[in-house]
Order: sequence, then structure tokens, then C-alpha cells
Amino acid sequence: MINISFPDGAVRQYENGTSALDIAKSISEGLARKVLAANVNGQVWDATRPINADASLQLLTWNDNDGKNTFWHSSAHLMAEAVEALFPGVKFWVGPPVDNGFYYDMDLGDRKMNEEDLLTLEKKMNELAKQNNTYIRKEISKTDAVNYFSEKGDEYKLDLLQGLNDGEITFYTQGQFTDLCRGPHIPNTGFIKAIKLTSIAGAYWKGNEKNKQLTRVYGVTFPSQKELDEHLAMLEEAKKRDHRKLGKELGIYTMSDDVGPGLILWMPNGTVIIEELEKLAKETELEAGYKRVVTPHIAKESMYLTSGHLPYYADSMFPPMEMDGEKYYLKAMNCPHHHKIFDAEPKSYRDMPYRIAEYGTCYRYEQSGELFGLMRVRCLHMNDAHIYCTKEQFAQEFKAVNDMYLKYFKIFGIEKYVMRLSLHDPEKLGQKYVNEPELWLETEDLVRKVLIETGVPFVEVKGEGAFYGPKIDVQIWSAIGREFTLATNQVDFAQSRSFKLSFTNQNNEPEVPLIIHRAPLGTHERFIGFLLEHYAGKLPLWLAPVQVKVLPISDKFLDYAKSVSDKLKKADIRAEVDDRSEKIGKKIRDTELLKVPYMLVVGEKEVNEGKVSIRRQGKGDLGAKTVDEFIAEAVAEKNERKAD
Amino acid sequence: MINISFPDGAVRQYENGTSALDIAKSISEGLARKVLAANVNGQVWDATRPINADASLQLLTWNDNDGKNTFWHSSAHLMAEAVEALFPGVKFWVGPPVDNGFYYDMDLGDRKMNEEDLLTLEKKMNELAKQNNTYIRKEISKTDAVNYFSEKGDEYKLDLLQGLNDGEITFYTQGQFTDLCRGPHIPNTGFIKAIKLTSIAGAYWKGNEKNKQLTRVYGVTFPSQKELDEHLAMLEEAKKRDHRKLGKELGIYTMSDDVGPGLILWMPNGTVIIEELEKLAKETELEAGYKRVVTPHIAKESMYLTSGHLPYYADSMFPPMEMDGEKYYLKAMNCPHHHKIFDAEPKSYRDMPYRIAEYGTCYRYEQSGELFGLMRVRCLHMNDAHIYCTKEQFAQEFKAVNDMYLKYFKIFGIEKYVMRLSLHDPEKLGQKYVNEPELWLETEDLVRKVLIETGVPFVEVKGEGAFYGPKIDVQIWSAIGREFTLATNQVDFAQSRSFKLSFTNQNNEPEVPLIIHRAPLGTHERFIGFLLEHYAGKLPLWLAPVQVKVLPISDKFLDYAKSVSDKLKKADIRAEVDDRSEKIGKKIRDTELLKVPYMLVVGEKEVNEGKVSIRRQGKGDLGAKTVDEFIAEAVAEKNERKAD
Repeated sequence: MINISFPDGAVRQYENGTSALDIAKSISEGLARKVLAANVNGQVWDATRPINADASLQLLTWNDNDGKNTFWHSSAHLMAEAVEALFPGVKFWVGPPVDNGFYYDMDLGDRKMNEEDLLTLEKKMNELAKQNNTYIRKEISKTDAVNYFSEKGDEYKLDLLQGLNDGEITFYTQGQFTDLCRGPHIPNTGFIKAIKLTSIAGAYWKGNEKNKQLTRVYGVTFPSQKELDEHLAMLEEAKKRDHRKLGKELGIYTMSDDVGPGLILWMPNGTVIIEELEKLAKETELEAGYKRVVTPHIAKESMYLTSGHLPYYADSMFPPMEMDGEKYYLKAMNCPHHHKIFDAEPKSYRDMPYRIAEYGTCYRYEQSGELFGLMRVRCLHMNDAHIYCTKEQFAQEFKAVNDMYLKYFKIFGIEKYVMRLSLHDPEKLGQKYVNEPELWLETEDLVRKVLIETGVPFVEVKGEGAFYGPKIDVQIWSAIGREFTLATNQVDFAQSRSFKLSFTNQNNEPEVPLIIHRAPLGTHERFIGFLLEHYAGKLPLWLAPVQVKVLPISDKFLDYAKSVSDKLKKADIRAEVDDRSEKIGKKIRDTELLKVPYMLVVGEKEVNEGKVSIRRQGKGDLGAKTVDEFIAEAVAEKNERKAD
Repeated sequence: MINISFPDGAVRQYENGTSALDIAKSISEGLARKVLAANVNGQVWDATRPINADASLQLLTWNDNDGKNTFWHSSAHLMAEAVEALFPGVKFWVGPPVDNGFYYDMDLGDRKMNEEDLLTLEKKMNELAKQNNTYIRKEISKTDAVNYFSEKGDEYKLDLLQGLNDGEITFYTQGQFTDLCRGPHIPNTGFIKAIKLTSIAGAYWKGNEKNKQLTRVYGVTFPSQKELDEHLAMLEEAKKRDHRKLGKELGIYTMSDDVGPGLILWMPNGTVIIEELEKLAKETELEAGYKRVVTPHIAKESMYLTSGHLPYYADSMFPPMEMDGEKYYLKAMNCPHHHKIFDAEPKSYRDMPYRIAEYGTCYRYEQSGELFGLMRVRCLHMNDAHIYCTKEQFAQEFKAVNDMYLKYFKIFGIEKYVMRLSLHDPEKLGQKYVNEPELWLETEDLVRKVLIETGVPFVEVKGEGAFYGPKIDVQIWSAIGREFTLATNQVDFAQSRSFKLSFTNQNNEPEVPLIIHRAPLGTHERFIGFLLEHYAGKLPLWLAPVQVKVLPISDKFLDYAKSVSDKLKKADIRAEVDDRSEKIGKKIRDTELLKVPYMLVVGEKEVNEGKVSIRRQGKGDLGAKTVDEFIAEAVAEKNERKAD
């Protein structure tokens, strides 16, 4: 018998050689039908693989990322089987799961694949899925593996085999298809109930443009047709909400060849959003006891040698400028500059925690092929701050940061979010991680406690911490269910040492502070991109570049419209008059397109009664009110930062 | 007889060969005693030089920059005469007037000059000045000039002579001293009534560190002892108000070797000032119909080739970063980025004037030896904006910019200012100036009219306009009478063409806009440096980083002090509690040093009465008031941005 311990702490005994799927079945058949894979001692395994020793076990379903990835990776194998059936002689490179589905890169020889082929392939895949073919894992020697693919004449798999050794090579077979694969896979193809092949692209072998171009087929699969339908509807909606499309239509941002790729020029409407976000951040941070700083965008090489960003992070930084015999770099992060400000004046325990914030602009090099609208850029305005604190203050400070996230989630109506707590790997202390085993455990434990106390949903990931401490990645979901990485919080007990930062503690001795790096609103670029999708461009009043448009029914009422607009402006409402000589219908339609929250229609009746007729974006006609009444309501709505 | 025309338009007849001094004497002896030089047909001449043809004439006195510069240049000759008397065999390089006085570079051979020598020299200069020696101008052939300095063995003057030709060489002699000099000079040494030699420095010959180091002696002179005394008192006061000293004491800014010279790190207190200034600018600009934008700090080489900044301005720019086969430059100005935003969407006459503003951060290369505190830096946060307008709108737009300056001058208590209108030189059209003779005259005239209408003091300078249009440099004087260049306004009719900017006019035709470049608050760096001196660090309430410090008389009253401080913070007043266990006297003294506008002392009496005892920086005790009364007054004071 072996002891299996479950996530809830329970430990139960099972026969040696039992599998995760067996265990699931022993609990309930319904559960077993959902189990896609299992986390066994921290590794993702086939649910069908025998467990031969005491182990910790977590059953993975569609709700777990690892479960989903296993499902999609198995779907890639299913697609490969279908491709091989329809394009005999095809050779395969790799077929990993990705953010929303999977792909497989393949060499079709002289043949080409088209959109119609995708439909045929889908049909074939559905047929194969229904065969309920088991994914069979087989350990194999390198010699046998090489022989297999040599016979098959597949130079790609042979290339992969070169990097592998005996004892770590496995084949997986389902139906007629066998692949070199480390797995894991779902129990059988019957789990795959709904299939959509989404696109065909070219991809250079190994990403090198000097190599042959392979055919990459993307697809996505689901455990039910309903989920696929929802997914396709979400994609359709996401297309309408595409921040690049809305960004252009609403005059949010532009780019220019002469400025360079990934460098956003924020137009007046986008700048209003930036300023409102900064105002929110500044208010929030002021209340939370932060002070603000402003730092330059460059620093000497020596700064980044001290911080450790050079040479390791050099690929993500812009190349240096050589001047006066020194190398200067655009900053890719604000922390070193902030450390210099911490260090500019001697600090005592009375100054701690010392919290400094800056909407700092950082420059990071991304391959031009990776750049994408506001989501992947080279210039980032970051909602940055660094908190220097004592060990005793850490938990409270970290909790305050967490509360700030929750405050923001509420304001922006972000209902689904999760914090991904990345921990160190004890085996890599001194290599990948600062060699401070106790500090690691201590801070990880503090962070974990805060997450539990505040009731924030979180997952733990071993071996993904930053070099200098545990890291929390914050994932959020937009209104249409798309996932975004919003921000990263980091606990840092290493940079204080590299920069020789200290404060005088109550015993009059120098002490090294802990540092929290935090950026709850992420970057303007990504966050505004997110907001455009989240709100479908219909920004809440407080964020809307133009908050109110006054529409005179005819030119006769232009003066009145202007007097209304002037009154609104005096109340700090961003108002404009549509002074074109157009029909009121057209004025309303055009204003709708610009997604202005309020339209105030004014004509004979309104002038006579000193009123305005109010139309709210998405809500239609709200009737007539006096200008003062409207102002009072609108001011309350925007000051409270209501969602709508 | 010749016709002499005066600045007021009057034309009078004089004997051929008459001098400016003769003419002054013919007006009044009192005037003649003040005439230092004369502007004859746009050139500065000796007042004693005979005029042999019809000419325009402006008499120059101490109140004219050119008069002052002539006075100081003549003082440099006087100093050289004294040096030659005391250090026979000394050789001279150049001795120009500078911002506040003059210097002369000299080769003393093996001898050294010390502070004591300066006193001896001053004495000698006073003695020579009293001799009322005339400055005698003599035209001389190159051969004779070379012979003179060859005999004297002066390789420096011989070096200067190499670059000169017959017909443009003059000697000036006063007393025992003769110098190669193009002049002009004051009539005689008797005008120099007060002399102060201020410092000795080393200076490499021709500014090249590979050359011999010469001795540079700085001095300043005045037409009366009273003016010298005032100047020295001002310097003494300026030392106390030195922005570098105050900047450190008040926690305004810092610098770091690892960041680099000339790169300011704005600390929390400095950042408060920055944010208040930006708030003022944003409010003012919003009201004036500007929209805001945010642009990156870099652009490709092609942008600056289009703008014309490359290659001509390359020396003032940071070196490029080479990336993806392109050169990227840190922006040294914001205009090209703004032009791209103007150009991002089609514009019609309905969109004009289009005003976009940004506190843009620019990077300019200055020699490290030129860097000076906040005054000369490499990273500048500029109160920048560009106004794109039609020719018809220009005068009104330019006047609005002018009004904005006046508004700011009032807020900051800047009582002395002058606008320096730099015009084109018709002879250099097509070379130094865009070849648009009519546009030059037209815009210069429009600018001039606005300056006259608004009654702003201004001077005109021919041949100092920007390449693309007339330029206005704004000079301001601090409370202690030191002059600062605050900002530059430029009218631009060239960049629109280079960037192919246009709008559709009312005739549905494309039209090229005029551009006004303006930055009334200059850069944060220079303006905050100015403000620190101007206010001697005692910033008005609205700008003060800490506005109120609550001082409990003993720890017993700490809770009350904190409740007062919390109430202040809720009213958006930047308040702190001095919670140290120190005597109240020390708390008051320390707070005075930090130049906090208000101190609220709280003890038994205040707690019982629910009041605070108010001390105002510079005004002392203002008696006790309730917290609410104090808040109401303080909020009004800061919201109205009162000077004190």
C-alpha cells in the first residue's frame, strides 16, 4: 500500500501501482470523467500513470491551467493524427499548448494547406476523437527512438532526440499516431468533444528566419460544444472590442514610423485616460502614505551592473549610448533610481516604512515581431512604487498593497482575478535564487498568510520566484472573459544589499530594509488596452475623454448649448458642443460612435424651460432636467468613479 | 552735413565727422556723461568715433546691454593695463565681457597670482581709472600689427592675428596699454568708478585641455560705488539663496554618480513642487483650450532628419542607440513628436487652432563642465506646447500666450521681466533663415504689435531669430535682482512644411498651419532653481512641500496633534506632526530651518479650547484659532496661490 496525500491535507492508502484516475474513480465516477491529468509530487503526470510510492496528489481538471494545457497538448496530437491521415509523409516539429488552444508546426513538403483543409481536418479529428483512443505512454531507449524516426525519415524529431538521453525519452501513441513526447496526456481522445481549427500561419523552424518555413496550424478544443460556442462568441466580441480598433476610432493613441515600433504617441483622448488613472493612483497612494518622486530615464552602466540587470537582462534593454567615455542605458525598471533616492539622505527607523511612487517610464526591448498594439510595447508608463520596510513591518505593508489591488478591482469592475504566488526552488538556492533559505521561507510564509487572510484567490508555483524574492503575478479577466497579466509584485531582500541600503534601527545599528516592488495598475499601455476591451470602449464617466456632448437641435439653439457647455466646464466636466449644422439624428448617431457617456439635447422646449434632455450611453433617454440637476448628478457619478 | 535718425523717428542734421558723444553733448552734458557707446546703423561703435555719412543712431548707456558690455570690456583692458604694470612680460589672450562683469585670460609665465594680488590690482586699476585715459582706436595694417606683437613676443595675439585681414584690424590704447581689439570701448577710463576683482581661475588656451593652462581673472565694475555695493550685497544674498544649497537642505533634489551628471533625481519634496507647477500649468492650459498629449522620449533618426535637427543640432543631442538596424535618439525637443500627433488624424479649419501641451522630458547634451545644479542639466522637464493655427488666428493666439506669461509673472511675484524679440536678418535669408521674406516681416510685425498692445517691456534684436521664425526670449529677474532666461517662444513657419502638415481650409483646400512653440514656465529644473532663489527657499503655501507642521508641546499632546494633522490632511493640506520627544523650542527652530509656512503649536491650553496656536514663517506668532478657522484660511491662501 502507498500513502496518497491530498491538497486538503487528508492522507489515504491505496494499492501500489494505482493511478490518479483509479483514485478519482474510487471517489466518484463523475469526478473521474473530469480528470484530465494529475499533479503528482509537484509534477504533471498522465492520470493513467501508475503511482508506485507515497505521493502528494492533486487531480487536474479543465479548471486547472495544467489540466487545460494537457487537454490542448493532447488535442495537438489528435490534430497531428488527422494531418498524417490526410497528408501522408508529413513531418512534425513541435505542438505545444498556448494561451488559448494549441498549435503544431509541420513540414508538408511541397503541399500547401488552405482554409478548406482545416474543415476537413476538423471533421477527421472529430471522427478520431469519437474512437476514444487511449493515449499510451511508452518509455523507450534513445537507440530505438532514433531508429523509429530514421525509418520514418523525420529529421525534425531526430533533431529533438539529439538533445535527449536514455531514461528521459518517451513515446505517446493514440490511434494510428505515435509521437516523441514527454507528455503528459489526457486519458483518451473521447474527452475532446468540440474542435475548432482557427488559423494557418508560417513559422520558421526554430524561429530562425534562415531556416525552412514550416506550416503552423492553430486550433482550440473543449470538453463540450457549449464551451466552444462560448469561446467563439467571446472571440467575436473581442474582435469588436479590439483595443487597436477602438484606440484608433476613439483617438486614444497612434504610432509613427518615424518614432519607431512599440512607441505609443498618446493622443488627447488617451492622455485624458492617463491623467485620470494617475489621479486615482496619486490619491490612493497619498492616502496610503506614499511620497512621490521623479527620476530620469537613463543611468550609467555602473547602476545596472550593481543592480544585476547587466549583463543578465541586457537583451531586454535598449542598447547603450556612449558618451563622455561612459555607457548610458535607458532604464528598463525604476527600482535602481528609487534606491538612489532612498539612499540620498540617511534614514532611521522613524523614516520606515519609506514608500516612494512614480509613474515611471521604462524602455524595454521586445522583438518587433512580438509588438502588439498597447499590449506589447517598448515604452511603458508604470504605476511603480517601492516600499522600504523592516521585517516587522513587512506583513502589514504587503497587506496594504493587496488591499490597494482589491480597491482597484472594485473600481474597475474586475470580478475575476487570481494572484499567482511564485516561490523559490530550494534546490536552486545560490544559483537561480539568492542564497537566503530562511528569508525565502519567512517572506513566502508572510505573503501566503496575507493572501489567505484577505481571502484573495491565489495559486502557488514553485521555482518561478524572482532572483531576489517571491513574486506575485496578478491575472485579471476582462468582462468578456479574456485573461490579462496585470502586474507583478515582488518581495526583494537582495537589492538592498547590492545597493548598500540601510537604516539605523532602534538599537542605533545599521539594518538592511526589505523592499516591496509593486505596480497595481500595471502600465498605462496594458491597462488602458485592457480597459478598452473590458468596457468595449464605453468608458465610465470619470474616464471618458469627452464626458458630455451638448447637441443643439438646430443652429438657433447654439448659444444656449454653449452656455450649457460652459457651465459644465466650470464644474470640471469635460464637455463639448456639436456645433455642426447637421440634423439632430446624425448628431446623436455620431456621438454614439464616439461612445460619449452623456448627450444633452437642447431645442426650443429645453431653452424655454432652462433644461436639457439627457441621453445616457447604453441607457437611452433619461428625460429632461435642469442643468444644475444634471451637473449635480454627473459630478457625483464621476467623483465616485461609478462604473456606469 | 549728414542726417542722423534717432530711435524716436526724429532726424537731425550734424557736421560730417561728428561723433555720438558730440551729439549727446549737443543734447545735454548730463546725457553725455552717461554715454558709453553708440549703436550706429545696427553696429556698436565707440561713442567717440566720427560718423561720416547719414546714419541711424542710438546712444547706449549703462541701461543698455550693449552699453554695459562695452563698459565691462573696457574694464578688462583697464585690468590688463594694471596686470602689465605689476607683472611685466605678461601675455594676454582674450578679455570679453560676460554675464556679470568680465575676465581676461593671461599667461603669467612661471608666476602665480593669488587673492592678495587681486587687491593690489584693484588699487592699481582705481589709480589708472582716475587718470581719465582716453581709449584710442587705431586702424592698422596686418604687417604693422604682426610686427608690433612679434617685437613684444606675444604669441597669443599673433595667433589671433592669423585669422584677421587688412582692413579689419584695429588697436586700442589707453594709458600705457595697447591691445589688438575690434572694440568698441567707452570714451575714457574715468567712467569706471567702482572695481571688484572677484576670482582667479585656470582656463585652457582655446578651451582645449591639451593646451597650456592660462590664468583667468574675473572682475566686475560699475559707474558708481553704490551700484557695486548693491551688486556685492546681491551676490552675498544669492549665496544664501543658492538653489544647490537650498535644494539639499530642503530635500528637493539629489544627483548620483551612477545615474550621471546633469541628471536630476527629484526627491519627494521637489516632486511636490513639480506637481503643483504642473497642476497650475494644466489648469491654465485647460482653460486656454489646450489638450494634453504624452509622447515617448525617443525617435528614429529619420524624424530628426526631417525636422532638420540632424545633423546641425547633433552636438546638443545624446548619441544614438543602434537597434534593429536603425538609429534611435533621445528627444532634445518635443515638437517633432507633437507634429506626428497633429498629423495622426486629418484636420480641418474647424479643428484650428489645435493646441497640444505636454510636460515633455527632453535630453540635451551639455559639456560636463557646463553643468550647474538645476540651471544647466542634461534632462529637462519642459512646460511645452505647440499651437497650430491659421495666419488669421496667429495674433490672437500669440497674445493669449503672452497673457499666460503675465498671469504667471503675477502668481510668482516676478516684477521685472523683459521679452527679447529676435528677428531675422534679410541679408541671410536662405542661409541662416528660411527664405520667406514676406512671412518673416508679417509674423515679426504681428508679434511686435502684440507686444506693444499688451504693454510688455521688450527689446528687438536683429539677426537672432530661429531658423524657422522670429523668437522671443523671456528674461526675468529674481527678488534679489539676478537675471534668468526663463523660456523661449518661437514662431515657426518652416516645420509644418518639413513635416507636410496641413489642414483643410474653408475653401476645401489644403493649407499649411503656422506653429507657435511656447513654454512659459520653462523647465522644472531651471524654474524651480529660480524659485528657490527668488523665495530664498521660503516657498509660498501652495508650493511648500510640507505646508503645516503640528508641534505638540509635549508627548502628552501627541494625540491631539495627530487629530489636528488628520483634519488638515482631509482638507488636502500637506501636514506633518513633529512627534519627537524634543523641547518645543527645538521643534520650532528645526521647523524654521525646513522653511515650513505654518507651525501649529498645541499644548494644554489649545487642547482645552480646541484650538491651535499659529506661527507663520517670516511673520511670527499669529495667535490662536480653532482648527476649522485655520483650515478655512489656509485653504483659501493655497487655492488662491497667494505669494505669502
